[in-house]
Amino acid sequence: MQIIERYQIEQALDLPGIYHALKQGFIDFSAGLVTVPPVGHLGFDNPPGDCHIKYGWIKGDPHFVIKISSGFYDNPKQGLPSSTGMILVFSATTGVPVALLNDEGLLTDIRTALAGVLATETMSRPDSRIAGIVGTGIQAHLLINYLARLSRFDRFVVWGRNREKLARCVDNLQAKGLDVVAEPELEQLCADVDSILTVTPSEIPLLKRGWIKPGTHITAIGADAEGKQELDVEILAAAERVVADSRSQGCHHGEISHAYKAGILTENNILELGELLNSEKSFVRNPEAISVVDLTGVAVQDIVIAKSVYRAVSKTV
Amino acid sequence: MQIIERYQIEQALDLPGIYHALKQGFIDFSAGLVTVPPVGHLGFDNPPGDCHIKYGWIKGDPHFVIKISSGFYDNPKQGLPSSTGMILVFSATTGVPVALLNDEGLLTDIRTALAGVLATETMSRPDSRIAGIVGTGIQAHLLINYLARLSRFDRFVVWGRNREKLARCVDNLQAKGLDVVAEPELEQLCADVDSILTVTPSEIPLLKRGWIKPGTHITAIGADAEGKQELDVEILAAAERVVADSRSQGCHHGEISHAYKAGILTENNILELGELLNSEKSFVRNPEAISVVDLTGVAVQDIVIAKSVYRAVSKTV
Repeated sequence: MQIIERYQIEQALDLPGIYHALKQGFIDFSAGLVTVPPVGHLGFDNPPGDCHIKYGWIKGDPHFVIKISSGFYDNPKQGLPSSTGMILVFSATTGVPVALLNDEGLLTDIRTALAGVLATETMSRPDSRIAGIVGTGIQAHLLINYLARLSRFDRFVVWGRNREKLARCVDNLQAKGLDVVAEPELEQLCADVDSILTVTPSEIPLLKRGWIKPGTHITAIGADAEGKQELDVEILAAAERVVADSRSQGCHHGEISHAYKAGILTENNILELGELLNSEKSFVRNPEAISVVDLTGVAVQDIVIAKSVYRAVSKTV
Repeated sequence: MQIIERYQIEQALDLPGIYHALKQGFIDFSAGLVTVPPVGHLGFDNPPGDCHIKYGWIKGDPHFVIKISSGFYDNPKQGLPSSTGMILVFSATTGVPVALLNDEGLLTDIRTALAGVLATETMSRPDSRIAGIVGTGIQAHLLINYLARLSRFDRFVVWGRNREKLARCVDNLQAKGLDVVAEPELEQLCADVDSILTVTPSEIPLLKRGWIKPGTHITAIGADAEGKQELDVEILAAAERVVADSRSQGCHHGEISHAYKAGILTENNILELGELLNSEKSFVRNPEAISVVDLTGVAVQDIVIAKSVYRAVSKTV
């Protein structure tokens, strides 16, 4: 078994290649070609923490993948990151482990941001060039970098609750030559852009229905577990199209779950991203419609990115 | 994260220490002190194979453990062992991985055999010194070695379907100075001993009710998955005491499941090994009674053995 460390993973990353493979991964997932058992979970109270095991296999693939990730929210008090993780790659013909990607959660951050780019590029108005980013953490940084590199978006407006963090986030991105401005009022951000990506750990809705103008697309990424919510359910009620990465997962947690449990949405109203990406004719949106993609994260993303990194590192060894 | 290879594990093994800790592990498990989520599973058809993820945490413990094991039954055609595995040890206060035990399944074999010794030592007649072993594989070897080392048993009778394998198995054990004889007739083995351990992958009952004399104890280890069976259900029907390592798991697979599904046993008739080990007065058996322990393997065994090895190796580094 090859142990692949984080610095090797960083060197081997082929972002455009992974982005392309992710698109196919979502298509395969929605076509039922991916075996994805229920997520394993262990919870801890004192200190509070979680461990999740996501695993799966794209049918016919030479490898299967198991990702173990944990989040312990008191870690920063000890100078440790709150989340960490690793991905294991196994032969699907012998069961032998072939690689351990000791990525410390890096690949989860990357595959999450790349799915955000893919969803936004697919769903937003074709003439949309300015993206509004709600949040100032790692996901905000990655999203802006990847949108600039991989999508048609070339200008970014960022909102954050904490003014200091917002200024620091924008400074960092500007220093990389990116066209980024801070917007301290979330309502104003919603007025200024027609593509919004939300990446906060909020547990109360941040975006209000009244602020969302016709033609807006929203990709909601922050609410990846029960209890989290970034969007007013009325936004989902008003949306012409509501899309999930995984329909079944979206109905249990994420933005969609709140609307689903309130009876505002049924499973029939929810498309999957992979279905949309697989449709023969490309998605044509009503220019005045509101659309929402809710991303909760599915194991096929981990499978795709782990395989890509493993292959790239193996080639260079 | 420390990578601990198989040769380091072999050097660090403290069998008596693990045996003692396993006893406490079963007690903790039956007392509800161990978080053991459902086993994760991925299945493969071509070639046929399985991957299982067993994981859990003894409440209050500084570490939690995830074991990944796989079985691909065509592997020997390629010169590979059919099963392999690894165990990961994580901090239960930060989620950080601290060790990967690259044991290739060794610790699963050992903890399984040690549980067999513990169950047989606890349940069989106190005057029983001769054990009958049904099977000639790795488990048979380990059981005889460990029974000789850790229990009151000092003479062994072995049965195997394949005469050649049976002879080889007995020769190997005799070469180690152990008092072992081959018995080619299973009915005769049942007549000769009053403690029997079954460790075959059989899918049809091998031991018949009529062969089991009063006072016999049977520890059934082979049937660890659906479809496997070593004992005639009538043996369980006739048993004064039927014990499982895990009541809920026993009712789903293992020997007990066959009797449970046939309505011969209810959950109320089944004791757990940890309950028995925890009882204030030691278990007193009716000398003429038949008893059965059915071991299907529980994650607490993996937790206990992984922790023991991790601590021993860490001390020597």
